[in-house]
Amino acid sequence: MKFCSNCGAAVARRVPVGDSVPRWVCDACGVIHYQNPLVVAGAIPEYEGRLLLCRRAIEPRYGYWTLPAGFMENGETVAQAAARETMEEAGARIEIAEPFSMISVPYVNQVHVFFRARLLHPGFAPGEETLEAQLFDEAALPWKDIAFRTVGLTLKCWVEDRRQGRFTFHAEDIAAG
Amino acid sequence: MKFCSNCGAAVARRVPVGDSVPRWVCDACGVIHYQNPLVVAGAIPEYEGRLLLCRRAIEPRYGYWTLPAGFMENGETVAQAAARETMEEAGARIEIAEPFSMISVPYVNQVHVFFRARLLHPGFAPGEETLEAQLFDEAALPWKDIAFRTVGLTLKCWVEDRRQGRFTFHAEDIAAG
Repeated sequence: MKFCSNCGAAVARRVPVGDSVPRWVCDACGVIHYQNPLVVAGAIPEYEGRLLLCRRAIEPRYGYWTLPAGFMENGETVAQAAARETMEEAGARIEIAEPFSMISVPYVNQVHVFFRARLLHPGFAPGEETLEAQLFDEAALPWKDIAFRTVGLTLKCWVEDRRQGRFTFHAEDIAAG
Repeated sequence: MKFCSNCGAAVARRVPVGDSVPRWVCDACGVIHYQNPLVVAGAIPEYEGRLLLCRRAIEPRYGYWTLPAGFMENGETVAQAAARETMEEAGARIEIAEPFSMISVPYVNQVHVFFRARLLHPGFAPGEETLEAQLFDEAALPWKDIAFRTVGLTLKCWVEDRRQGRFTFHAEDIAAG
């Protein structure tokens, strides 16, 4: 950020009075422009024991598989965001169940939240961001071609939980590297 | 937002191509300025069965009681944010345990996440945002003077869970009104 979104003047990077970290500060109008982490909301859609994954038609990670997920928008709940992203990316209607994983990814300033979900119909209509949507048996999950570490970690926890016969909530952090 | 933070030109509110909701768009440099929900991270610090609350020295809700909580910053995990806010608001060191509640508040574009936590020492040094910090027995919790609905709901769930002898994760939404 280089200009003030409030008044258009140039902004400076410094620690405001009473604060402890540098911010973009506008000396013209006094507004401090905070920058905060984004929430990525996703779903783990199940249908008769299989999981719905989408193969990405966009960068980053073009061609790799992901659970349907994307940036939460203003005015919606985390669960609504997960259902919306599933509709946008897979053309699939789901019924959201309980939250399953919350994963902080501080080096990209994101928090990923995935919900267990029930796929209502096994038909898909992938959106522009998706090459194909497909149901996977556990044994066929494409572990080597998963787009994001949060998705891989969520799938790993899901598989382990199912083997143990009980699903719990998983809070995890992913460090850089 | 009225000006482009990237180039300083005036921005317009419209639906970008391929999108479905209005954004602030800069026609001069092409940047789309997304606005997304903020994460508020907080703690439920316990010490010998009592809970730590802080009485607010700032608006909104000056003089009302809250669990220590605040906006998550870039570069930290949700748990780190909760511990930092507890230090800033109560001058209290805690050991973060498991996440306890995740509450969407879509009408203010926020997601509140509270962690169970163990207060390491019963001494406090409230920061500038806090009038006083105090440990409360369950029977003495100031239910009528709680600052925020997410804090009241989290405390209610905590009290019910303790009575049942087992703590679980609570996902909730709070609607306007």
